[in-house]
Amino acid sequence: MQKPSIPKGTRDFGPEQMSKRLFIFDTIRQTFQRYGFQPLETPAMENLSVLMGKYGEEGDQLLFKILNSGDFAGGLTEADWQAGAKKLTQKIAEKGLRYDLTVPFARYVVMNRHALPMPFKRYQMQPVWRADRPQKGRYREFYQCDADVVGTDSLLCEAEIVLMVHEVLRNLGIQDFTLKINNRKILTGIAEIIGMPGGPTGRQEGVLAVAIDKLDKIGQEKVLDELRERGFSEDAINRLQPIFGFSGEAAEMLQSLKSWLSSSDTAQKGIAELEEVWQLVNQYGLTDSQLELDVTLARGLSYYTGAIFEVKANGVQIGSISGGGRYDNLTGAFGQPGLSGVGISFGVDRIYDVMEELNLFPAGSQQSTQVLIVHFDAEARAVGLPLLSRLRQEGVTAEAYPDITKLKKQLDYANQKNIPYVVLIGSEEVQTGLLSVKNMVSGEQQKQTADELISLFSPSQL
Amino acid sequence: MQKPSIPKGTRDFGPEQMSKRLFIFDTIRQTFQRYGFQPLETPAMENLSVLMGKYGEEGDQLLFKILNSGDFAGGLTEADWQAGAKKLTQKIAEKGLRYDLTVPFARYVVMNRHALPMPFKRYQMQPVWRADRPQKGRYREFYQCDADVVGTDSLLCEAEIVLMVHEVLRNLGIQDFTLKINNRKILTGIAEIIGMPGGPTGRQEGVLAVAIDKLDKIGQEKVLDELRERGFSEDAINRLQPIFGFSGEAAEMLQSLKSWLSSSDTAQKGIAELEEVWQLVNQYGLTDSQLELDVTLARGLSYYTGAIFEVKANGVQIGSISGGGRYDNLTGAFGQPGLSGVGISFGVDRIYDVMEELNLFPAGSQQSTQVLIVHFDAEARAVGLPLLSRLRQEGVTAEAYPDITKLKKQLDYANQKNIPYVVLIGSEEVQTGLLSVKNMVSGEQQKQTADELISLFSPSQL
Repeated sequence: MQKPSIPKGTRDFGPEQMSKRLFIFDTIRQTFQRYGFQPLETPAMENLSVLMGKYGEEGDQLLFKILNSGDFAGGLTEADWQAGAKKLTQKIAEKGLRYDLTVPFARYVVMNRHALPMPFKRYQMQPVWRADRPQKGRYREFYQCDADVVGTDSLLCEAEIVLMVHEVLRNLGIQDFTLKINNRKILTGIAEIIGMPGGPTGRQEGVLAVAIDKLDKIGQEKVLDELRERGFSEDAINRLQPIFGFSGEAAEMLQSLKSWLSSSDTAQKGIAELEEVWQLVNQYGLTDSQLELDVTLARGLSYYTGAIFEVKANGVQIGSISGGGRYDNLTGAFGQPGLSGVGISFGVDRIYDVMEELNLFPAGSQQSTQVLIVHFDAEARAVGLPLLSRLRQEGVTAEAYPDITKLKKQLDYANQKNIPYVVLIGSEEVQTGLLSVKNMVSGEQQKQTADELISLFSPSQL
Repeated sequence: MQKPSIPKGTRDFGPEQMSKRLFIFDTIRQTFQRYGFQPLETPAMENLSVLMGKYGEEGDQLLFKILNSGDFAGGLTEADWQAGAKKLTQKIAEKGLRYDLTVPFARYVVMNRHALPMPFKRYQMQPVWRADRPQKGRYREFYQCDADVVGTDSLLCEAEIVLMVHEVLRNLGIQDFTLKINNRKILTGIAEIIGMPGGPTGRQEGVLAVAIDKLDKIGQEKVLDELRERGFSEDAINRLQPIFGFSGEAAEMLQSLKSWLSSSDTAQKGIAELEEVWQLVNQYGLTDSQLELDVTLARGLSYYTGAIFEVKANGVQIGSISGGGRYDNLTGAFGQPGLSGVGISFGVDRIYDVMEELNLFPAGSQQSTQVLIVHFDAEARAVGLPLLSRLRQEGVTAEAYPDITKLKKQLDYANQKNIPYVVLIGSEEVQTGLLSVKNMVSGEQQKQTADELISLFSPSQL
């Protein structure tokens, strides 16, 4: 007999995990909506013509491809078979699983551009799939929760993201976090200043961004070693030194940056953008702001062109729980250039781990049954069922043990499901109309009428 | 430049559809939970060893298969290439997309059986994929919303499903529906009585079930023609006649069935089960019951062994919106025999169509922005932003138009997003502190202080 298993890198989420995940999803969704973002869902499958070439060569390989249905092998020649996996894939697979939520969003915007309000604010919370090597904390199926605005370059959108990150995390109960912000134009300016400009290919600037991004993990010396290996001169590396010395208040750092990067127009523009974001955030009256400027924040080779965001929870050894930024050409690959946008993405798996480690899930997020009705016989059940209906009408999550069986078995079920209250109905209860209510935590037991019981359990009381 | 498209049979759900779909999902989820069902999610991808052979030969073909990653073609011989699509698939695809929620549920139960409370009540709301030919109302990706109990054969579970269907549909606003119930054992008995018993293969009973299932669509004569074609004798067809004559009160119908099928023990057992379900439903005190016995309800060649359910909304030409039943061997294929279960599945797409046609979506389900703040200049914006923060703190869905631009453009945005109220802030408002609030439906405009405005929009007022 076959022993069932699930694909590596994928997970089942049982009741306890799901209740906690739903709490995270609901909280993020509500906050996104309160900020005027509207829901979008796209199909799990996209045409490979939409996905390929959007995530670099490595990304193309990490796409899960779906075998064409029917006789996919019928029209193929021997030459097709022998052309290797990559060329053969084009002949036998037209579709793939979505790799992120950004490319499907760009496709949606282009396909529906005449019907959408502009600027268009959408959020999307769906799983994505990557054929990465699974390891601790890295899965082949995982959820992304993204909110983006496209169709405006107003920096008010950056300020809104700062506000929204604060609200999402506070609503989740994650009070102690750092929201780092930088601006890609500052990195561009730094690359210019040190004599390693990006140029039309952005290559050297990209090398700088990838290396700087590892500062937290590998330290300053190893970052510099990497730059040397990738062809940065000692002169360039010396000129780069100030980047490691920025700290303190954002306003002071911005002043120092202005003088260091005074010869780069691009850097000055990035600095001005950051100043405006700070000013707008202050106008909103954000209290207890956890926004910090970090000039070494780069987010790798990403397509960001303006603001860059990254969020970490303090006090836990878990990577960033959220990140995002501004991009200037979201839909260019689909024939609609010039749409600027800015977005933020929350990683549910990491947020889950943070909340678990810091014990932040509220007790109510378990969404378990509150009352189990236990019957001793069919006559007792006839008394219990109308009570069950009334409890549910009051909004109480309630069940009856389905079988008429030993008391112990029914109470074991209550314990296993963490049901806090049990109503016991036997012949005495049927005769007197007084029902026994047992608190499964304290063991306390008391007799009550059905009416008393209903008001005891109505949601405002629990 | 490439023109983007989505795979045939799949759909994007934009903001308006998503808001309505979320209303359906939330309503079903809340009701499932109130009845003690707990959430489960399984991965989109399952090993093909889990999926294959569970849905018949046709089902195997309709599975979407995922190409193995990496050099999937490397170790293959010419004989493999020439063995045809079916055999070749086994060599190049290990995983497939889930086809329903029942098989993944069975796999989960077997893999976690020692940790689960029994009976185990789970609900699952996720998309499934089928490589069916797309047509009106039939998609390649669609959601199922299932609730099942396994590990008990108590008929209380059937009664709970009857109650829960009523509550889900009432909470959705679908007041006029019919919940049909039958019992597979009655069909088995009828097949025996007419001399066409199922036998160990269940073949003739299956032919009867498939034909009878079409009664609504093709009528009595064509059902009988189909049975004749499939080898049913004229004698058998004559004996079958009473099946078309049952109507009226369930209690009377059950009496008539008892005498017609008196020689079949199996049928008598099915009748007794139905009687008990009815009795239990009455004990719950279900008012305005829309439960109806239909002895021609068969649900095709399905694996049901006891109760069968099907729900139709009245007054619309749309097929069943929900269905389910009892099965006796959910997990047998995975090495755990003898687990009886009963479940119900809601079809979100059809429910959506019914609610759209009957205009049942509540206005609030649109979840759009309630207030847009419109600025004439940066000075006005500095007044608007703290107001925006306060509105959101009160739970009001609010946004500011991000750019400082012409009034018309900002009002167009409000209209396109169906935002009912706009707060206009210009130099006069900045000076007087009185803000202009415009009702976008009536066109009415009035001046208010920020405090008045907050209380006007707090959720209890809207």
